[in-house]
Amino acid sequence: MITLSTRWESVRGSAIRDLLTLTARPDVLSLAGGLPGTDLLPRERIAEAAAVALAEPTSVQYGETAGLAGLRDVLAAHESQRCGRPIPSDRVVVTSGSQQALDLLARVLLDPGDVVVVEDPAYVGALQVFQAAGAALHPLPLDGDGMRVDVLAERLAVGLRPRLVHTVSSFHNPRGVTMAAPRRRELAALADRYGFLVVEDDPYGLLAFDGAPAVPVAAYGDRVVRLGSASKILAPALRVGWLTGPAQVCAAVERLKQCADLCTSSLTQSITTELLCDTAWFDAHLHRVRAATAARARTFTSAVAELLPQVTCSTPTGGMFCWLDFPEGTDTTALLPRALEHGVGFVPGSAFAVDAPLPTAARCCFASLPDADVREAVQRLADAVVA
Amino acid sequence: MITLSTRWESVRGSAIRDLLTLTARPDVLSLAGGLPGTDLLPRERIAEAAAVALAEPTSVQYGETAGLAGLRDVLAAHESQRCGRPIPSDRVVVTSGSQQALDLLARVLLDPGDVVVVEDPAYVGALQVFQAAGAALHPLPLDGDGMRVDVLAERLAVGLRPRLVHTVSSFHNPRGVTMAAPRRRELAALADRYGFLVVEDDPYGLLAFDGAPAVPVAAYGDRVVRLGSASKILAPALRVGWLTGPAQVCAAVERLKQCADLCTSSLTQSITTELLCDTAWFDAHLHRVRAATAARARTFTSAVAELLPQVTCSTPTGGMFCWLDFPEGTDTTALLPRALEHGVGFVPGSAFAVDAPLPTAARCCFASLPDADVREAVQRLADAVVA
Repeated sequence: MITLSTRWESVRGSAIRDLLTLTARPDVLSLAGGLPGTDLLPRERIAEAAAVALAEPTSVQYGETAGLAGLRDVLAAHESQRCGRPIPSDRVVVTSGSQQALDLLARVLLDPGDVVVVEDPAYVGALQVFQAAGAALHPLPLDGDGMRVDVLAERLAVGLRPRLVHTVSSFHNPRGVTMAAPRRRELAALADRYGFLVVEDDPYGLLAFDGAPAVPVAAYGDRVVRLGSASKILAPALRVGWLTGPAQVCAAVERLKQCADLCTSSLTQSITTELLCDTAWFDAHLHRVRAATAARARTFTSAVAELLPQVTCSTPTGGMFCWLDFPEGTDTTALLPRALEHGVGFVPGSAFAVDAPLPTAARCCFASLPDADVREAVQRLADAVVA
Repeated sequence: MITLSTRWESVRGSAIRDLLTLTARPDVLSLAGGLPGTDLLPRERIAEAAAVALAEPTSVQYGETAGLAGLRDVLAAHESQRCGRPIPSDRVVVTSGSQQALDLLARVLLDPGDVVVVEDPAYVGALQVFQAAGAALHPLPLDGDGMRVDVLAERLAVGLRPRLVHTVSSFHNPRGVTMAAPRRRELAALADRYGFLVVEDDPYGLLAFDGAPAVPVAAYGDRVVRLGSASKILAPALRVGWLTGPAQVCAAVERLKQCADLCTSSLTQSITTELLCDTAWFDAHLHRVRAATAARARTFTSAVAELLPQVTCSTPTGGMFCWLDFPEGTDTTALLPRALEHGVGFVPGSAFAVDAPLPTAARCCFASLPDADVREAVQRLADAVVA
């Protein structure tokens, strides 16, 4: 018998995680995972970049904990452009995916019992990280313009004192919505007024179908830690994410990262650097990915309108996710096993719920499947609903 | 002003870490880092394996949190052979280097205040992880046969109740010693009797100069979590480590790894699988690395005997480290800046000290530098001593 730590035992397990592993069955068309389309990942270009990287002896050695200098430079240039002000390279820390950035942030910033404001519904990976850090989660509703920053302002006015406010600001996971510009400005101002930090988790921002990413929350204030990722714009297997933020936060995250995994792979960092510095290729690649993903989104939403007319479906403008709302009385958690029998997977709303149970909701990822399979997946879902 | 977590503020910084960054200066021959020789890393073979891996679409996608099935299989086969009993693949969790395995283990197993037995001197990365978890460190001395398991037995008999006992069992970092077989057996028996877990941290075991790695502590009992790494036998930039242990520990570590970084790179895991499965190549590669490293160790120890006759130097039988003991009255921490002025780096004993300050000791890594530079590095150190 082995005793686990008290803290760890208290982190809730995901009841549907086992069920979701079934979505990986070859006979299942999965709308469940948050995976970019495998067919859209630039595998040949990565192979070229790997060959170039591996001509350098240092590509297979340990690297500096904060990341390769060349990668920090190009990321700083990207972030400076996004935010409209210079962000120096020493304010960029490279992490093993942006998930690691979230985990390191929670560990350096939170004491057990600290209040963390999260969106409801929320990215499950963020909820797990904050729970593992012993935080007290405070859920905030979303609408079509993203986080209800007005509700946050009201609660702050009557005494709410969070350490962190977490937001997936663009093309929200799971809701698909993007925070409107006035709310971004207001959120940054509230952080300054009340002394909390905003964690702006932005893996999908560059996947705006119109090619015009939103101005980051970090453009409006200094108390914002911005997280980015190569997973959705290049490839998940690079395991390259990054964080920009106040110098003190960067220094603490770098020091904890040394404990956590010493450094991120020099090889995958070199590949990422090569791809991001090849501006002509990168711009064309992003254009291709956006166009293909937008087409999948259109196919998905038209198929839902046609085959599941009783379901309300969000209208994606970027990212990877559609949020479905089934008629009153539906239980999407009970629907999932039937859907799997019919060869389609999705994630029930309950998986993302912080406060409200969301029994009628479902998240569908339209980005993973080739266009031809998207309609078939919706057909199977419609069949499961009437079964 | 940003407040960091209380726990994090309490983790000691490394006073000499800033100084050690100076060892990366191009004019410095560094005996400081724990880096395998860049010239011994199989870069061309990795490039071939990368090209093979990247022919598969899944090589650039997310992978399962516990690791690629093919990699877990070959690691299970290796570990089964090392331990002399079958270890199933589902008892292997792939991590982002074995440093991540240490960190995840500490997080799932330790509550603040839990006692962790560490060797003194100890691997600094382990000390940092246990401190970050809030553990109470209990140091245990080493001698030429490794951890003084007899001293541990005495302390257990009078009431010491650790949750974990950490050991670098073969070619210790920093002492270079290997735990003798009777002590390994006794340590496993004590774990069974007193209910603690042994963390057998074994990145160097396969680097036995005579090609005969020691029988693992894990061969003698079930309450042992064994950590392995591709960093010293293939290349650090793969960031592939692994853990084998009790099912309950593997399950908890896998779940926390999902929080920590979702998964390790499918690409570097695929490369590692290819290299480990190419048995003829892998055996020949290990033979080359062992022979070259043994030659560097001989060059280092003869140079010390000739140029620093007043210094006692351990006799390496594998791994990467020599432990030097300077005459009474020497302060190696004060020597380091002088050594850097003379163009050579090392790590003062104080960096590894848990209890005793070890002012006369130094760790030198003989593996990083080409043979021709090893003697020159010792010459510079000798010059610094008389300066």
